[in-house]
Amino acid sequence: MLIGNAVVGQSGGPTAAINATLEGVIRGALECDNIKKIYGMRNGIEGFMDKRLIALDEIFKDEDTLRLLGQTPAAALGSCRKKLPDPNSDKAEDVDFYARLFALLEELDIRYFFYIGGNDSMDTVAKMTKYAEKVNYDVRIVGVPKTIDNDLMMTDHTPGFGSAAKYIASTVREIIRDCSVYTVKAVTVVEIMGRDAGWLTASSAIGRIVDGTAPDYVYLPECPFDMESFYKDIEKAFERKPYVVVAVSEGLQFADGTYVGEGTQSGSTDVFGHKYLAGTGKALEMAVKNRFGCKVRSVELNLPQRCAGHLLSNTDITESVRIGRAAVHAAAEGVSGEVMVFVRKDTDAYKCDIEHRSVMNIANSTRYVPDEFISDEKNNVTDECCKYLAPLIEGEYPVVFEKGLPKHIIL
Amino acid sequence: MLIGNAVVGQSGGPTAAINATLEGVIRGALECDNIKKIYGMRNGIEGFMDKRLIALDEIFKDEDTLRLLGQTPAAALGSCRKKLPDPNSDKAEDVDFYARLFALLEELDIRYFFYIGGNDSMDTVAKMTKYAEKVNYDVRIVGVPKTIDNDLMMTDHTPGFGSAAKYIASTVREIIRDCSVYTVKAVTVVEIMGRDAGWLTASSAIGRIVDGTAPDYVYLPECPFDMESFYKDIEKAFERKPYVVVAVSEGLQFADGTYVGEGTQSGSTDVFGHKYLAGTGKALEMAVKNRFGCKVRSVELNLPQRCAGHLLSNTDITESVRIGRAAVHAAAEGVSGEVMVFVRKDTDAYKCDIEHRSVMNIANSTRYVPDEFISDEKNNVTDECCKYLAPLIEGEYPVVFEKGLPKHIIL
Repeated sequence: MLIGNAVVGQSGGPTAAINATLEGVIRGALECDNIKKIYGMRNGIEGFMDKRLIALDEIFKDEDTLRLLGQTPAAALGSCRKKLPDPNSDKAEDVDFYARLFALLEELDIRYFFYIGGNDSMDTVAKMTKYAEKVNYDVRIVGVPKTIDNDLMMTDHTPGFGSAAKYIASTVREIIRDCSVYTVKAVTVVEIMGRDAGWLTASSAIGRIVDGTAPDYVYLPECPFDMESFYKDIEKAFERKPYVVVAVSEGLQFADGTYVGEGTQSGSTDVFGHKYLAGTGKALEMAVKNRFGCKVRSVELNLPQRCAGHLLSNTDITESVRIGRAAVHAAAEGVSGEVMVFVRKDTDAYKCDIEHRSVMNIANSTRYVPDEFISDEKNNVTDECCKYLAPLIEGEYPVVFEKGLPKHIIL
Repeated sequence: MLIGNAVVGQSGGPTAAINATLEGVIRGALECDNIKKIYGMRNGIEGFMDKRLIALDEIFKDEDTLRLLGQTPAAALGSCRKKLPDPNSDKAEDVDFYARLFALLEELDIRYFFYIGGNDSMDTVAKMTKYAEKVNYDVRIVGVPKTIDNDLMMTDHTPGFGSAAKYIASTVREIIRDCSVYTVKAVTVVEIMGRDAGWLTASSAIGRIVDGTAPDYVYLPECPFDMESFYKDIEKAFERKPYVVVAVSEGLQFADGTYVGEGTQSGSTDVFGHKYLAGTGKALEMAVKNRFGCKVRSVELNLPQRCAGHLLSNTDITESVRIGRAAVHAAAEGVSGEVMVFVRKDTDAYKCDIEHRSVMNIANSTRYVPDEFISDEKNNVTDECCKYLAPLIEGEYPVVFEKGLPKHIIL
């Protein structure tokens, strides 16, 4: 039995469920006899290096505070986007980085290290695991997935995705209601997050299998975008009704690999080399206006889709707590260098088990929307896709409000 | 006692509460012995002219259906933006228009006419009232206000505003949580609806008197916008913390009357001569990026702020039902040519009475945010403003969901 302290950090972009997972990790740590103290690192690994830590076990002593944490959107501990150096690098600064990092772990007697994050954060877990093996430091390092993008390998879905999907599906159906009130021809382009994978954009269509309310077309980054086919799709929709609503992914690309929103985007990239995209909806708005001369509007769902804590999927939040808790129990039982995952059991009633997989199989690859979830015309998702998505948005988490506003905890 | 049929229409931009008012009108009509049938006109007065009517009393026979209507966002009957001609015009087409309109009222034995709408819609109520007097047609015409903009004269606030304000205040605090996770300098500009009046933008600040979470600055269209003061405000905020969040109204203008978003807007106008604005946030995003070289993001709350039926102010929805019902009862008692209004009773506990005022005093003028609600530096609202706004967002209307999505009724 490995006895010592634990530390937990959050990394990558915010989600509405990342604090529910933190709640789960804290609950797990409070339950485990092997874990003495649980620290939270501010701003992920960056803050840890500066020893910016808070004692979570001293803050979360009662049920109400833990519950409040779970409903607060965006990383309560703060986040970072630091990319760790190669653990086998012999560059002086890289050697020094890992030496300092592991000296700090030892100084604080950290034997349990939990990192809640997306694809890039699992890269941190993988590298630290490799380095720990190299220097033979006894620590259990476990990653807990978090991303609204749902694009991690090996897991049925990711914590945080369900709430984002619920917000998107609800908001898009409200936009459809809004657009349906006039009789003049109009096109509304809703731009949804998703740089590489179209899961979030796909979720705008869930209403179709509930009551038939869904966008007329759904364009995913998995399929090359073609302007002429797009115009033809709109023409066809206009034959049926005056208002057309389409959902587009921010990451849409033409066949030659240029981004649809390229013209209106800044062109800068983040430290992982990802391009910042923001202009897909706007670019298509202008294109449709030029082509059809009708009223056109683009709506970018923007930040609210990843931080709308006022509308949370009960499935997502309860699962997010569960997976955080499970990570701690797995670590206590000896698991390390692994990432916790959801495995959907093939039954009619939705049920997910929590297991773990080697981080080496997860980091730095992307899970795309598969072909069978995309229509033959590449302009919508299939009912099968909606059926996969539907259970993830089920249930409304009972958010506590104070004087009309969702209550948050600030650490 | 005037006995006959009633007709109700919805006009102007959608809100999340306009169907709650329709619910109230239907409830009122079902209760009144003077009213035999209640018709709904599709797409407002435009649809009425084409005799596109539905028998609401035949559809809404049970409590569940009425409740479902109340929580469905955007005009369930459809809307229009038709401006009626001058009732005293002697142009052939105008004379013909009113002749046809009133022949139709007579044909259908309409003695009660309810119009739910904003400023421009009250213009319709005023003109029809004048014409009815001129031709001595016995009909009770009552306007019921509806606008997220809260810019109607004579009323404490407008139905629909409270839910929009609740959505905005909740969403902006979530955006603040989202922006607070990183340590790099960043500015987020949230663009909020409000062409002329800053009520919606002001409501982003309500959290300040709840738990201190509010934008750093709030800029309203009531005050001329000055770029240098804006830059100074941001510099000052950066002295305290790395992330700055500002709320700006879409209608912001410089001292010379040009719109801040003018450069990036289309420049077209609607039939009432209003300019379409869309670019204020984007324009400020680019300006701040040029000036400070830091990370900048603009978030346009866009359509969801007026149609987010998944997050409704209980105060707003229950009041919206009440005012619709009250309109019918007032008409049954002889009121005509009037608009229903809220009158806030000056007590510590919030309480609003429903009264009515002459439509002539309401149509075609705008209620602005008064000076005492705006800070001396013109870059924020006062606590007094927040105190006026706070009760309007109180309570969460118990929205019915189906398979994870808010349930809507489609007429």
